[in-house]
Amino acid sequence: MTYTVKEIAAALGAEAFGAVDLHIAAVAEPGMAGPDDLALAMSPKYAEDLPKGQARAAMLWAGADWRAMGLQAAIVAPRPRYALSGLSAMMDRGEDFGSGIHPSAVIDPSAVLGDGVTVGALAVIGPRATIGAGAVIGPQSYIGADVTLGAHGFLREGVRLGARVTIGDRFFAHPGAIVGADGFSFVTPEPSGVEKARATLGDQGTVAAQSWARIHSLGSVTIGDDVELGANSCIDRGTVRDTRIGDRVKFDNLVHIGHNVVIGNDCLICGQVGIAGSTQVGNNVVLAGQTGVGDNLFIGDNVITGGATKVMSNVPAGRVMLGYPAVKMDSHIESYKALRRLPRLFRDVAAIQKAVFKSDKSD
Amino acid sequence: MTYTVKEIAAALGAEAFGAVDLHIAAVAEPGMAGPDDLALAMSPKYAEDLPKGQARAAMLWAGADWRAMGLQAAIVAPRPRYALSGLSAMMDRGEDFGSGIHPSAVIDPSAVLGDGVTVGALAVIGPRATIGAGAVIGPQSYIGADVTLGAHGFLREGVRLGARVTIGDRFFAHPGAIVGADGFSFVTPEPSGVEKARATLGDQGTVAAQSWARIHSLGSVTIGDDVELGANSCIDRGTVRDTRIGDRVKFDNLVHIGHNVVIGNDCLICGQVGIAGSTQVGNNVVLAGQTGVGDNLFIGDNVITGGATKVMSNVPAGRVMLGYPAVKMDSHIESYKALRRLPRLFRDVAAIQKAVFKSDKSD
Amino acid sequence: MTYTVKEIAAALGAEAFGAVDLHIAAVAEPGMAGPDDLALAMSPKYAEDLPKGQARAAMLWAGADWRAMGLQAAIVAPRPRYALSGLSAMMDRGEDFGSGIHPSAVIDPSAVLGDGVTVGALAVIGPRATIGAGAVIGPQSYIGADVTLGAHGFLREGVRLGARVTIGDRFFAHPGAIVGADGFSFVTPEPSGVEKARATLGDQGTVAAQSWARIHSLGSVTIGDDVELGANSCIDRGTVRDTRIGDRVKFDNLVHIGHNVVIGNDCLICGQVGIAGSTQVGNNVVLAGQTGVGDNLFIGDNVITGGATKVMSNVPAGRVMLGYPAVKMDSHIESYKALRRLPRLFRDVAAIQKAVFKSDKSD
Repeated sequence: MTYTVKEIAAALGAEAFGAVDLHIAAVAEPGMAGPDDLALAMSPKYAEDLPKGQARAAMLWAGADWRAMGLQAAIVAPRPRYALSGLSAMMDRGEDFGSGIHPSAVIDPSAVLGDGVTVGALAVIGPRATIGAGAVIGPQSYIGADVTLGAHGFLREGVRLGARVTIGDRFFAHPGAIVGADGFSFVTPEPSGVEKARATLGDQGTVAAQSWARIHSLGSVTIGDDVELGANSCIDRGTVRDTRIGDRVKFDNLVHIGHNVVIGNDCLICGQVGIAGSTQVGNNVVLAGQTGVGDNLFIGDNVITGGATKVMSNVPAGRVMLGYPAVKMDSHIESYKALRRLPRLFRDVAAIQKAVFKSDKSD
Repeated sequence: MTYTVKEIAAALGAEAFGAVDLHIAAVAEPGMAGPDDLALAMSPKYAEDLPKGQARAAMLWAGADWRAMGLQAAIVAPRPRYALSGLSAMMDRGEDFGSGIHPSAVIDPSAVLGDGVTVGALAVIGPRATIGAGAVIGPQSYIGADVTLGAHGFLREGVRLGARVTIGDRFFAHPGAIVGADGFSFVTPEPSGVEKARATLGDQGTVAAQSWARIHSLGSVTIGDDVELGANSCIDRGTVRDTRIGDRVKFDNLVHIGHNVVIGNDCLICGQVGIAGSTQVGNNVVLAGQTGVGDNLFIGDNVITGGATKVMSNVPAGRVMLGYPAVKMDSHIESYKALRRLPRLFRDVAAIQKAVFKSDKSD
Repeated sequence: MTYTVKEIAAALGAEAFGAVDLHIAAVAEPGMAGPDDLALAMSPKYAEDLPKGQARAAMLWAGADWRAMGLQAAIVAPRPRYALSGLSAMMDRGEDFGSGIHPSAVIDPSAVLGDGVTVGALAVIGPRATIGAGAVIGPQSYIGADVTLGAHGFLREGVRLGARVTIGDRFFAHPGAIVGADGFSFVTPEPSGVEKARATLGDQGTVAAQSWARIHSLGSVTIGDDVELGANSCIDRGTVRDTRIGDRVKFDNLVHIGHNVVIGNDCLICGQVGIAGSTQVGNNVVLAGQTGVGDNLFIGDNVITGGATKVMSNVPAGRVMLGYPAVKMDSHIESYKALRRLPRLFRDVAAIQKAVFKSDKSD
């Protein structure tokens, strides 16, 4: 499918210049663009590569002199990266899963499928599951008993939704994503070394060998609208009530969300993040890659963590955190600089000791 | 299925009070409980929400005045969290996988299935696999050649057991769990930069480009009884002998267990933990979320790590560890407090320098 | 299948001694070896266990006195660990997936399969996919639309290759590995708190709630020859162009490779490593387990990281890095030692203060 420069600009709320009836088949980096591609040159640095490619049209920054770049047409958006969102949606070639119900899918007769649902090859849909209109259940995906998936959900290949999971509209899940494994909740007959070490900050006392008894997950998972879940990410069931994810939360790959966790709206949870059981996360929170959050904590609205931050206590709203254990980013940077200057400090103190005590006591 | 208050108390070894013939259909948090739910109010804090719900019966702490809470019946257990284990097992609604062999499953004729085995839709069971009595092989699961799975194992949807894996009784595996991928073991023709950097603690010497030759995994994985493996977790094969997991070990989601690792009994391995190749872990060890353990190390019995601990050397039995690199938790806390006070120390030393040397040498 | 001692030595380019016509059925650790096993005793320490087993032949180090160990035959290789690569390849018993196209596989009629391709039970091959000669598509694997997989690729059970992925020859993928999930790329209508916090190193300014708009991944993934991808690892699509992996790169389990990442040749990426979007990694790089690399960074050739290193800025070629944030390994060790001596430094400074100022100002 192709679009004219004019159509693309209109869809993005951007301005079009020049030969606005040129047909565009795809987008490309400036240096690799063919004659039917729209080159993405949203800053002067990227525009430098335009001569290496064959683009006749480009998306440029405000004020760019497109004629001087040898282009026939240009699109200018006020915030080009945001415009890329709409542009990439137009140009997405999709998965080509086909449509309709593949004959190899195994669908329980009690499942209810809305209008226009697609079910891919070798997918399984369990008893009493409800699939909203226009949803796409990818090949080899699994929908458990009593699951509710809203309208226009899109499950890539091999997604698994466990029994009793409830998900809103427009859910997007990547291959291998799992919703509704059981929570990781075990208890010993007598108080364990972990319980004692937590209470004392490090002393587990006399240790008696005990085995772990399983606490089953009676809750499931409830997810709002417009949530995206990355490849091989896992959201566990709650113990008594459901684990809850708000609206418009986006999860990257290999994320672990423990039992009973509550996440608000509009959060961004990056790759390999882990949130332990019963922690509550507010709205508009951004957790960078490999962030870890301990159990039973509160993360306020608008909190941001840097990469690999390990959150071990509550975080008030609006904080920008970094480090292990997590502290405010500016405190972390100050401590870190001091740490790098430590060897010099040791030498300075040794010199002072020599001057003050007339003998070097440092080693 | 419902139980009376009396039946539940008897099953848990707990005391029942009041209208012990009340029928209970499910458990619930106090504020969300309906009239047929058993409210879980195991401390006064949780009991405060009882008036918001409609519970007629609750599980309470020892000595609680259930009549004053407006309840008709109560169950009191000496260690309520432990009682929750048994209670949750009674109330678990399960996965509703059905029973028997689903006609879409692909089962090699040489596989041997015990009495009462369930095989879900689109599961695959390979040559000469042996499945113990009462086991449930979830939909889309995979059992490789020559696998032995003990009695009453339960594989959720999409679990994969590679060739020659041996597992004891009552194994429980969550969606996407994998046992028996090959170990990650590669070698260069000449000593690599990694080998040199390890020997020198940081100097890899002259670097010659080399490619990595694969060491195949000839061993498989042996797992004891009553082991649980979380969603998308991976346990790799051994190089020559099997990777070995003891009895009653519980693994959370997204855990990585490298080749040749040996883990004892009764361990708890939390979410996103990684244990590198050939490391040995004792009994009753608890590794908190995102803990990493280097290769070829020994972790003694009863060791506990805090969240995101990175273990880079052997750990004696009984230690409680924290930090990167891991140290005893109390040492870590002491170092960490000192680090936070460092900026002040720099100022103090500068003041002393000024006093002692009559000129400020600090920068 | 068995080999004689002579045949094994010849295949490995090693020397054989003694009864070189002995037949070897498998390899084993010295203490567990049976009479038809080749014991792996590549150092005196391992040879100590030979009497516990029944081995008649062993692989030994140069100069070992095999007769004194009671052996009938021996193989001596100059670099025994490297020889183990070839030896393990000879002895690998494989997955026993069978051969040919399993009747339960779902293969789009437009897909093109090379000579001798094996397709396992319940695998799916999408439209216009091209599978090279001799490739093995494991049971329950998924090949998306327009995928190209080179000759002699081997996909274990449940591997998933998304639409338009291009992979060279001899690709080896472990269970649950995923290539071609969408990148994690989102943008807000107005600059987000994250953009501001990055610019200021910690101050996100006034926070306005915004939702995240998805940037679709229009690129796919291109992978070279001889690449291995571990269990449940994920390599994401690029935004405009493909994410690119060079030749002979080996990935362990649960690795996350973000969109637009470029990795050179001959790299070793260990378990649970994460590389964020648009980062470029050179040749012969080794990233140890749980290493994290931020987005938009450059990692030079021959860089090595230690376990759990968190790389937050560019790394020049040849560096050996450790820590969070990553620094040169020797700097990290120096800082770390200083950190451990800090409590003493505080006491020393307090003593000086007392001497100099005639009063103790420390707290």
